[in-house]
Amino acid sequence: MASPCLSFFFISLLLTTIAEASHCSIKGLPLVRNITELPQNDYGRGGLSHITVAGSVIHGMREVEVWLQTFAPGSGTPIHRHSCEEVFVVLKGSGTLYLASSSHEKYPGQPQEFKIYANSTFHVPVNDAHQVQNTNEHEDLQMLVILSRPPVKVFIYEDWFMPHIAAKLKFPYYWDEQCLQTPPKDEL
Amino acid sequence: MASPCLSFFFISLLLTTIAEASHCSIKGLPLVRNITELPQNDYGRGGLSHITVAGSVIHGMREVEVWLQTFAPGSGTPIHRHSCEEVFVVLKGSGTLYLASSSHEKYPGQPQEFKIYANSTFHVPVNDAHQVQNTNEHEDLQMLVILSRPPVKVFIYEDWFMPHIAAKLKFPYYWDEQCLQTPPKDEL
Ligand SMILES: [Zn+2]
Ligand SMILES: [Zn+2]
Repeated sequence: MASPCLSFFFISLLLTTIAEASHCSIKGLPLVRNITELPQNDYGRGGLSHITVAGSVIHGMREVEVWLQTFAPGSGTPIHRHSCEEVFVVLKGSGTLYLASSSHEKYPGQPQEFKIYANSTFHVPVNDAHQVQNTNEHEDLQMLVILSRPPVKVFIYEDWFMPHIAAKLKFPYYWDEQCLQTPPKDEL
Repeated sequence: MASPCLSFFFISLLLTTIAEASHCSIKGLPLVRNITELPQNDYGRGGLSHITVAGSVIHGMREVEVWLQTFAPGSGTPIHRHSCEEVFVVLKGSGTLYLASSSHEKYPGQPQEFKIYANSTFHVPVNDAHQVQNTNEHEDLQMLVILSRPPVKVFIYEDWFMPHIAAKLKFPYYWDEQCLQTPPKDEL
């Protein structure tokens, strides 16, 4: 017979595995979910609160993904690009969109700046480098973010003059990391 | 020389054509748009206020489409199905989702009912017949609606026991009708 200590270890491991499984699968989740009760985390990115509202990895979405993101003053996304469509709907606060549009050069280059406010909507053309920042010192910036072709494959730039080919692939993305270790299940 | 009356006619026609073109094309629209200033209409459906936030036909979206819809008490969507993913985010009010899930029969059949509230989110599986209604007598129901594979091709049922093969294709859908008469432009 195993020692009580070892049994405890295996039971812990079992419970952890069950918790991971339910966290990473739609199974057992109700069809109608309250967004305010969904898991939220900064995923190691200061000033961020990210909630996957409808996700590829967690909810089995295949064609669209929806996030609710809140950025504290001064925080924002990295400079990045992805080969999917992205639509933003600003729910609260204000900030700045930086967009290196029609970036046919070897690097994104100096971006155009656009002020964004509550009720603003905009979309980012496929593969254009962009960044969204909360440039309002006094208020959180909250947005619904909608993407096609999930799970998202993001290329991150350190600055606007980093060559496209030097941009670093971050996949799985921060919030997909925990659950994308296991191969996605073929659910029907 | 043409008569003044005829000149007036041609100028009117020209102005109408320009107005239609700008209404049906992203050209001239700013990148960041204020949702409260976008065109809204009931498109002949009583109790509805529909705004295309990011659309295939108007904004050149190819993979996702976003609508803001507000339903007065007692109003709602038709019973319908479509072969795309759809995510709802309820912003205000409350109502009922009717969903005939796993409808492998010849007709949708009696749907399951789910109460929905502000901050509710849910998605409708591809091709499942569904209907969303504002069943709250006192308040508007407002939702962001996200769809893949735009422009949407909707099959409409008169009731839950109408055979799938009798459901009527409505394409272009109500809000795409005006602008989908002209073939979609190949924009880059
Ligand atoms: Zn992005
Ligand atoms: Zn639908």
